[in-house]
Amino acid sequence: MTVGIIGLGLIGGSMAIDLKRRGFAQRVLGVENDSLHASAAEKIGLVDEVVSLEKCIGESDIIVVAVPVGAAVRLVTAVLDRIGDDKIVIDVCSTKEHICQATKYHPRRGQFVSTHPMAGTEYSGPWAAMEGLFDGRACIFANAEESSPKALRTIEELYGCLNMRPIYMNASQHDVHTAYVSHISHVTSFALALTVLEKEKDEKHIFDLASGGFSSTVRLAKSNADMWIPILTQNRENVLQVMDTYIEKMQAFRKAIDEFDEDGIRGLIEEANRIKKIIR
Amino acid sequence: MTVGIIGLGLIGGSMAIDLKRRGFAQRVLGVENDSLHASAAEKIGLVDEVVSLEKCIGESDIIVVAVPVGAAVRLVTAVLDRIGDDKIVIDVCSTKEHICQATKYHPRRGQFVSTHPMAGTEYSGPWAAMEGLFDGRACIFANAEESSPKALRTIEELYGCLNMRPIYMNASQHDVHTAYVSHISHVTSFALALTVLEKEKDEKHIFDLASGGFSSTVRLAKSNADMWIPILTQNRENVLQVMDTYIEKMQAFRKAIDEFDEDGIRGLIEEANRIKKIIR
Repeated sequence: MTVGIIGLGLIGGSMAIDLKRRGFAQRVLGVENDSLHASAAEKIGLVDEVVSLEKCIGESDIIVVAVPVGAAVRLVTAVLDRIGDDKIVIDVCSTKEHICQATKYHPRRGQFVSTHPMAGTEYSGPWAAMEGLFDGRACIFANAEESSPKALRTIEELYGCLNMRPIYMNASQHDVHTAYVSHISHVTSFALALTVLEKEKDEKHIFDLASGGFSSTVRLAKSNADMWIPILTQNRENVLQVMDTYIEKMQAFRKAIDEFDEDGIRGLIEEANRIKKIIR
Repeated sequence: MTVGIIGLGLIGGSMAIDLKRRGFAQRVLGVENDSLHASAAEKIGLVDEVVSLEKCIGESDIIVVAVPVGAAVRLVTAVLDRIGDDKIVIDVCSTKEHICQATKYHPRRGQFVSTHPMAGTEYSGPWAAMEGLFDGRACIFANAEESSPKALRTIEELYGCLNMRPIYMNASQHDVHTAYVSHISHVTSFALALTVLEKEKDEKHIFDLASGGFSSTVRLAKSNADMWIPILTQNRENVLQVMDTYIEKMQAFRKAIDEFDEDGIRGLIEEANRIKKIIR
């Protein structure tokens, strides 16, 4: 089996490592537009060869589109346009509705499997790729019923090799859920970083006191703009809805603190504490 | 040296462990109002003996007040009222201005050292106490010039034994800084937990998709109300100011996403990315 990976960043690069080492792919080809990233990917040895898009499509049995979500929608369609009956295309985007809509009526829709391996770090680029990134994490299969059973089975095996736990849902449900348990976390981290960095202009030593709690809350603010701009705009409606609820909760906290309303603060904190039962 | 610790929670309990094991204290006495916590502290062996407040004050050379900040202000004053010339009292509160104001004109002010060991986890109670909690972290000495040089030196040695890095600042500066790099992180985590828990009422499986990023952002929402109510109310003015800046940043993000303003989103994310240089 030859796997071709378009986009050798954190996700594409990490898939390349494990699919090869664990024997799912005998050969891994990579496509990378950024010449610095391409050189790094070859030097690090993420793939057997960095090739042109043409060659990747021509020689791969499975083509993984692992570029930011804005570019992915166009690229998946373009790849589907150019393949024969025997190949499978997958995407790994963090938003699913847009890409599933764009491919819904494509004559080769059955050969496309839309997935979201829910793993990552706040780092990006081929340097961020790592072994075992996906182990034990969830992988979403969006609108799986639109893929052919054969293509679906093959991609389930691919993610099985990465030790991922499959979850099946429709694309719109996926986008609501990820807005709540992933996208909003990034926005709140960005806002926190902006808040403290603004204060740092007056108070140079403010970060001397930064604790482990602060670091963990602000960690995601290191995340990359090229990745997050298309996610936030493609999932705009869900993200705005979560942000509105979130801002309401902040306002409720603000009011309770402002009014020295200790019972009100206690009510909010103890309700929030229910997260203990869910997140270990 | 006998050290008496009033309040055997995460901070008091962890101090008890290391001060005894590392030989700073030959004997550690504990005072604990909550009878379940008292039994647990004895059973776990955090202290040599759980005793009455009277006995603790009578037999300890250093008395550590490690109760939530609301009770700490009254308790520090009460302990100072009852000690002779040879004893030292410290507090470990997360807000400093209130306690420093309340003790400023106390005749035994020189025997009081106001500190904030900046370490912790989202867990509380004697069960949360752990060895090495303070190693390598910062300890604030607030208004250190109001303590006698002898008392200050002794407490610097105590924190030296805990491998803490001393930072000296005035109480009001401390309260501004911690509002930015600690208190706001807790409020944003509480608000995030509330937002997602509210959605969970309709979407039962929403947490199936929770990633490592979400967990790290929401972790502090497990924090205890008894600890955080007095911190947020005592540091009300600073906390409200940070919250207002934070809500402004969220609104700016919301507006940029709402308007599909990709340049605006990029500007905000790339500004937030500056946090990389500060938080490793």
